[in-house]
Amino acid sequence: MKKFEHYSIIKQLLRWTILVFPIAILTGSAIALFLWLLNQAIHYRFGHQWLLFLLPAAGIVIYFLYRLFGKNSEKGNNLIIDEIREHGEGIPKRMAPLILLTTIITHLFGGSAGREGTAVQIGGSIAAMFGRWFRLNESDTRVMLTAGIAAGFGAVFGTPLTGAIFALEVLAIGSIRYNALFPALMASIIADITVAAWGIHHTAYHIDIIPHQIYFMSDLLPVDLLLIIKVIVAAIAFGLASFIFSGMVHEIKVILGKVIPIKWLIPVAGGMIIIGLTYINGNQDYLSLGVDPQYPGAITIPSAFHAGGADTWSWLWKTIYTTTTLASGFKGGEVTPLFYIGATLGNTLSQLLNAPVSLFAALGFIAVFAGATNTPLACTFMGIELFGGEYALLFAIACFTAYLFSGHSGIYSAQTIIVPKF
Amino acid sequence: MKKFEHYSIIKQLLRWTILVFPIAILTGSAIALFLWLLNQAIHYRFGHQWLLFLLPAAGIVIYFLYRLFGKNSEKGNNLIIDEIREHGEGIPKRMAPLILLTTIITHLFGGSAGREGTAVQIGGSIAAMFGRWFRLNESDTRVMLTAGIAAGFGAVFGTPLTGAIFALEVLAIGSIRYNALFPALMASIIADITVAAWGIHHTAYHIDIIPHQIYFMSDLLPVDLLLIIKVIVAAIAFGLASFIFSGMVHEIKVILGKVIPIKWLIPVAGGMIIIGLTYINGNQDYLSLGVDPQYPGAITIPSAFHAGGADTWSWLWKTIYTTTTLASGFKGGEVTPLFYIGATLGNTLSQLLNAPVSLFAALGFIAVFAGATNTPLACTFMGIELFGGEYALLFAIACFTAYLFSGHSGIYSAQTIIVPKF
Repeated sequence: MKKFEHYSIIKQLLRWTILVFPIAILTGSAIALFLWLLNQAIHYRFGHQWLLFLLPAAGIVIYFLYRLFGKNSEKGNNLIIDEIREHGEGIPKRMAPLILLTTIITHLFGGSAGREGTAVQIGGSIAAMFGRWFRLNESDTRVMLTAGIAAGFGAVFGTPLTGAIFALEVLAIGSIRYNALFPALMASIIADITVAAWGIHHTAYHIDIIPHQIYFMSDLLPVDLLLIIKVIVAAIAFGLASFIFSGMVHEIKVILGKVIPIKWLIPVAGGMIIIGLTYINGNQDYLSLGVDPQYPGAITIPSAFHAGGADTWSWLWKTIYTTTTLASGFKGGEVTPLFYIGATLGNTLSQLLNAPVSLFAALGFIAVFAGATNTPLACTFMGIELFGGEYALLFAIACFTAYLFSGHSGIYSAQTIIVPKF
Repeated sequence: MKKFEHYSIIKQLLRWTILVFPIAILTGSAIALFLWLLNQAIHYRFGHQWLLFLLPAAGIVIYFLYRLFGKNSEKGNNLIIDEIREHGEGIPKRMAPLILLTTIITHLFGGSAGREGTAVQIGGSIAAMFGRWFRLNESDTRVMLTAGIAAGFGAVFGTPLTGAIFALEVLAIGSIRYNALFPALMASIIADITVAAWGIHHTAYHIDIIPHQIYFMSDLLPVDLLLIIKVIVAAIAFGLASFIFSGMVHEIKVILGKVIPIKWLIPVAGGMIIIGLTYINGNQDYLSLGVDPQYPGAITIPSAFHAGGADTWSWLWKTIYTTTTLASGFKGGEVTPLFYIGATLGNTLSQLLNAPVSLFAALGFIAVFAGATNTPLACTFMGIELFGGEYALLFAIACFTAYLFSGHSGIYSAQTIIVPKF
């Protein structure tokens, strides 16, 4: 490398900082609006529980919104991953408002879904729009789209480093390439700052101080070997939960498609199943996002961090609710339900394994997500950004073990396999 | 994926845990011995400063040790990287004892070098030995060697997660593949535990609590934008320091080879330059490892974390000392000197940029190393493992920026470029 090449790197970095700036600001602002609306919708439903009965009708509305205005944006996250790999039909501008609107509808009427799909699609479609305006070539457009994913993901969860790594890691299974890292990092930082500047706050999770246990040679050894073994056992369960989740979304979609020939009736059926499940359960804990409690004592993600904060089978209920909701055409994404499934499963396993409950809830939170999206590195960073660096080693062990046990499919069918898992 | 395939993954994981177990235990024990001997050698030299005058003679001994017994092990870390990429002439067993002995000699007589080269070569050569005993096929041998690197690196610095990521990331520039991750993680954890079980402790570094600064919208924004800009500016300097370091090792080697036709005289010349530099300096601060202080007030890595703990040009002095030491044939590796260069440069830059000194020393510590070895992800984790997760985002920004500015060569010439930096 010649000396003056350093100037060209600086030029590149400045160029990308300028290019991603408007995308990150706009994505961050859209995410702030989305998070605010989402919060309004969720709390409105808490006060008006009958809204759940309109879920089947809401499903029809979402179906026809996509049918009439959607073009190819129904493909969602997979479309963005596809476009980064190989330029195809392009990402339409309408993707952003459509996914925002339909996600709010899903949550207002009690569908069990997430918000990362919405965030990624808002970021991706804004990035695609600016890419066309800036007349970028194909390779620069890919970097731009990656930055859009990073901005959306980093902003929606308040985790900029995770957003950037997720955007690079989600594109393929088994490897990560560094080419778009600087633009992605810039975009997610700026988008995260934008959300905060709008006054929107993220949920704070805490791992309680874990009681110091006396174990074999504990004065000498830096880690608790028994704890590591427990983490690996739990992580195998987390990986299997991801595997079940991904498989069920796929299977339920196939079955509904076969049983119900009229397409707009599929979300009606999905909505009715959710209503039926809620009657069986007797409570609305597994509806919607699962972050804020509907009533004191409800099972939520934060409650799962404490002993008694989840039922033994909460993770399975949430799996059934969410896979039914998403497979029948409702919108929002999978990640927050995966957090819920992981945290509640971690809660259950901590009792079986006699392990610290908040630590295992945190491990489940990140590991089920790592398995289902095939992004173990991003999830390790998410653990560090959300819960602190003290348990970084355990986060990595849990995420990579769950990743190995989640199978090759995952929730994003557009991912290509670069390095097989086994 | 069929259901029963999960059993085969468990089988694979158990198989690898068993395979890496003896390697990790043996590597960890060898590293414990090495760290103990190194500490003895360094403190013996502190009490016997005249040993420095024997550095040229020590260089001759090292030269002939490799000439007579070395076979191809002189190639060091590059040989291991080469063998993982493509099976060649093989890694000889003698590599481990030779590098251990010659590193101790280098430090006993005041050569400015590190210890990660030694650790990686001990791990790699032990892994190669067991690979032959177990009659592993080529692809399994590669995984085994990667686990050997992880064990050595994780054990010598007490950072198991970093060790595993480093072993995967160091193999190529611009990408990381996940295939050997589980064995590497197991190996580095077990090796780290082994070192601790032998009663060997690692240096603890601390980032002081950083005074809360009032900045633009500081109540609302999650990060300090001005601080991020300062980090990027500093990281460009860290990257350039890596670039200068890698270039100088190469150039000095070429020049010495041209000027001095008799090969065994090259380390003599190198040793005499180090003696001359020490006279010019008037102190022995830049000799050897630079971790423990030779006298109260000496400039060391820990001292660089405090205001006044490094001179303005300490980083340049250490660069000259270390590149001369290594280019003339002494042994030990580059990483601890790179920590030293980074921490002292961070100390200097913190004054120029009016930034927190301990934070910028920590950033330099990891970022100069990230640039010189092209392992930004491993170095981000190293920052988290050594200094805590609170500044994970800044660690990542610093490591990836330095990585972009360090050029394509780095200190390991065997690295192949998968994704160019610009």
